[in-house]
Amino acid sequence: MEKKITVICGDGIGPEVTKQSIKVLNAVAEQFNHKFNYDQQIMGACAIDKTGDPLPQATIDSCKNSDAVLFGAIGHPKYDNDPHAKVRPEQGLLRIRKELQLYANIRPISTYPTLQHLSPLKPDRLQDVDLVIYRELTGGIYFGEKTLSDDKNTASDLCLYTKAEIERVAHLAFNHAMNRKKKITLVDKANVLETSRLWRKVVQEIAQQYPEVAVDYMFVDNASMQLIIKPKQFDVILTENMFGDIISDEASVLSGSIGLLPSSSIGSGTALFEPIHGSYPQGAGKDIANPVGSVLSAAMMLDYFEMYEEAALVRRAVSWALEHGFVSQDIDSVNYYSTSVIGDLMKDFI
Amino acid sequence: MEKKITVICGDGIGPEVTKQSIKVLNAVAEQFNHKFNYDQQIMGACAIDKTGDPLPQATIDSCKNSDAVLFGAIGHPKYDNDPHAKVRPEQGLLRIRKELQLYANIRPISTYPTLQHLSPLKPDRLQDVDLVIYRELTGGIYFGEKTLSDDKNTASDLCLYTKAEIERVAHLAFNHAMNRKKKITLVDKANVLETSRLWRKVVQEIAQQYPEVAVDYMFVDNASMQLIIKPKQFDVILTENMFGDIISDEASVLSGSIGLLPSSSIGSGTALFEPIHGSYPQGAGKDIANPVGSVLSAAMMLDYFEMYEEAALVRRAVSWALEHGFVSQDIDSVNYYSTSVIGDLMKDFI
Ligand SMILES: CC(C)[C@H](C(=O)O)[C@@H](O)C(=O)O
Ligand SMILES: CC(C)[C@H](C(=O)O)[C@@H](O)C(=O)O
Repeated sequence: MEKKITVICGDGIGPEVTKQSIKVLNAVAEQFNHKFNYDQQIMGACAIDKTGDPLPQATIDSCKNSDAVLFGAIGHPKYDNDPHAKVRPEQGLLRIRKELQLYANIRPISTYPTLQHLSPLKPDRLQDVDLVIYRELTGGIYFGEKTLSDDKNTASDLCLYTKAEIERVAHLAFNHAMNRKKKITLVDKANVLETSRLWRKVVQEIAQQYPEVAVDYMFVDNASMQLIIKPKQFDVILTENMFGDIISDEASVLSGSIGLLPSSSIGSGTALFEPIHGSYPQGAGKDIANPVGSVLSAAMMLDYFEMYEEAALVRRAVSWALEHGFVSQDIDSVNYYSTSVIGDLMKDFI
Repeated sequence: MEKKITVICGDGIGPEVTKQSIKVLNAVAEQFNHKFNYDQQIMGACAIDKTGDPLPQATIDSCKNSDAVLFGAIGHPKYDNDPHAKVRPEQGLLRIRKELQLYANIRPISTYPTLQHLSPLKPDRLQDVDLVIYRELTGGIYFGEKTLSDDKNTASDLCLYTKAEIERVAHLAFNHAMNRKKKITLVDKANVLETSRLWRKVVQEIAQQYPEVAVDYMFVDNASMQLIIKPKQFDVILTENMFGDIISDEASVLSGSIGLLPSSSIGSGTALFEPIHGSYPQGAGKDIANPVGSVLSAAMMLDYFEMYEEAALVRRAVSWALEHGFVSQDIDSVNYYSTSVIGDLMKDFI
């Protein structure tokens, strides 16, 4: 098969980790007789530096004409503490989500028995943890109207949801639950927010179409505790954009390193695959970043291409590297390998 | 000294735990020659059942004429999954926060060496954890305009903050930091939200008045990880209402049981003191709830009355009970004592 993939390395450690995924994808292509055509594009701080725009039109065009987008990370501290900055790297990421209508961000959280010592949690809490978070990605307070008064003393952000926005991501989550442990937990704040009450109502309605799926409703404050106290109680978590941002990062601590975790963002346009870690600017250019999050994102992309055997092989390569100690600094601060060497070893495994 | 205290037991386990605090307060009064006059009032589901209103005017009046409010918990599941319910117990709590202008909710999180086995976290992560969360309590998305379209297909919640709202709670947090490790972390989402950018700007300005305090800015998604990965990095955390709701409950896992943690809510009206746990309806009436969160809230109230010696004694009573195994089911599921026996023992200690 032939696939066109837009590659957006982005900022910080983005380029280094994405490079390892390309190595692995090339090895897969060779072995399975596929052709992956990459189109490198820019987004984020690097795009601002080059063009003044965090998401140049050429990048959007390429994504829209691709079969998938492989993305690294964006963000640079020089923009974070400047509340006056008009142009920010994150705007690129938010805009591409809208442009490609990536309304669902999917983050599987699993734990590796050999890495349990890394997690801040006691091993007994990590046993049987296998959950996936469906975060709504193109609505809510991220995209609602923002205002700043003329005297700059009053600011507002609007959180808005429509029934249709909730339905489409909910159906994806329910379908996934049907292929898993058949349990969904809706995380909301229905005791306070009108939007959460709409979420609860719509999910209650949709649930009737999936009678086999057990549905649970949990307030976000409680969920943020339960994720740490008893993470194995969860199968599929469904939630709105802002809550999903918080609890999916929180859930990443279960795995022991955020560097291990992949995500996919899908919707009605081209799908996008990215590790959940950020741009980690302090680590940029040092060849120390963990490539696993990106490589597992590439595996999710292969699944999306329905190349299931190929995806499984990539996951085996990752497990093999982790089990044999071919790991980066975040996993083993004494005996560690560089980003590029780990990428080479995984490529050779394939 | 003589003090008038409005007591709002509320729903679920609220009455049981509050009763133990009253025992302890009475013992303190006797020993130190104070007079505490209690005025029992209702709020929450019990108030809806009795009057149709989760916060009757008599309760508001009593609170406004008191020196402090001691509150248990509210909430009942019969309201939670009904998105159509017009009257909900939580409205009582939200309205009293507004009525009394309780703009700061203060939640100290400490860990007890003898209880570290209870925490889902490994002991090394819990060492030296001593943080306090300042959550803004009367603004943001909790109190912004809510809409539901006529066809009931679109809902919205407005998150709004003014400079003045941020300043008053920020000053409290900075002042507290001055008496602690002199570090503040502002938790926000300034890379996405206009309100967060206002928070960051205002806090940057206020910081100049407290040159000794080190100020850190952290995105809420990252904070939700850092709280679990490396909680000892925090001293004072300052954040807006919704983020504070989530991360303060999350932080409660550090202590091993949410039943242990107290809070105070202060502002320009009468201050209110409450355990951070909820109404735990499944446990109601069984004499199994942990009274420590409520008793430590009473200790915070004594501090607020500037009865420092008295507050310290109450805390010693709690530590003594915990160290001697006079604990509730959530702390020791085999050898446990009932709520009321623990209350009696603490009272006798005093
Ligand atoms: C960079 C930021 C805008 C983004 C978000 O909040 O969605 C990131 O945290 C994420 O989760 O992908
Ligand atoms: C009961 C609920 C409205 C309340 C809140 O969200 O503020 C509670 O969770 C709390 O933290 O006191």
